[in-house]
Amino acid sequence: MIELNPIGFIKNTRKEIRDDHWGDIESEIVLTKQFSPEALAGIEEFSHAEILFFFHQVPPEKIQIGSRHPRNNSGWPKVGIFAQRGKNRPNRIGSTIVRVIDCKGTHLRVKGLDAIDGTPVLDIKPIMAEFLPKEKIVQPTWSHEVMIDYWDTTPED
Amino acid sequence: MIELNPIGFIKNTRKEIRDDHWGDIESEIVLTKQFSPEALAGIEEFSHAEILFFFHQVPPEKIQIGSRHPRNNSGWPKVGIFAQRGKNRPNRIGSTIVRVIDCKGTHLRVKGLDAIDGTPVLDIKPIMAEFLPKEKIVQPTWSHEVMIDYWDTTPED
Repeated sequence: MIELNPIGFIKNTRKEIRDDHWGDIESEIVLTKQFSPEALAGIEEFSHAEILFFFHQVPPEKIQIGSRHPRNNSGWPKVGIFAQRGKNRPNRIGSTIVRVIDCKGTHLRVKGLDAIDGTPVLDIKPIMAEFLPKEKIVQPTWSHEVMIDYWDTTPED
Repeated sequence: MIELNPIGFIKNTRKEIRDDHWGDIESEIVLTKQFSPEALAGIEEFSHAEILFFFHQVPPEKIQIGSRHPRNNSGWPKVGIFAQRGKNRPNRIGSTIVRVIDCKGTHLRVKGLDAIDGTPVLDIKPIMAEFLPKEKIVQPTWSHEVMIDYWDTTPED
């Protein structure tokens, strides 16, 4: 068993879980009281950061350990939970590369973080080009289809 | 407090922690008994996967929560633990994008995983181009210098 503590929490305008339309969401990551501004010193020199967070609203009984249709859409093939990025996964960790907007004290502002308000953050890492894939990305058709509206802006209600 | 369980363990030839020369290391991720081959179904259709793992050899007292020189090299600026990717970090989670070689049952073979033999794995996610940065990466000079030999092949002793 591995025990983790949130290093911060996400503040944004997205109060409910939604599949799509994360494109224009700005978030603030507020570090917990354990940390001083020193912990984020230098982060603004990076254009992008990777945010690891905990899908805290997924109840343990909803976790999938086998395979399923992504988003339960039978139009897409049944694939293993480790071959998709859905939230109902073992350990419930999300990982997203975001744009760094700015940092004030222990508050880091980012764009493109697909997590709702109140989400516990587990880690923040700077993106270095050397850690990105060097070769062409190959991925199945369904995975492009899942993403069509994902980074789109929020439609007007 | 968030409790996690390893979903698998890493098997490779790298028995000791080293800073550099991860380029030619092939690893096998062996899922725990809880999982069947179904959990990885479809992963071979992706060229790359993201592996989240636990730096299990970092003792709690070595965790940094402020700033430090990367690799304790005073030639590089002192930056916050969240502005560097070193292992002595809160929650001790590593995250690396690797190449998928093949998958047999609950054994996933990958290349470019910078973690030692026996490391607990927390998650496996497929890489979709839509989750990679859309804009040019900007990063400070020191972060390029840190990476110079990182993905180099192992030198002969």
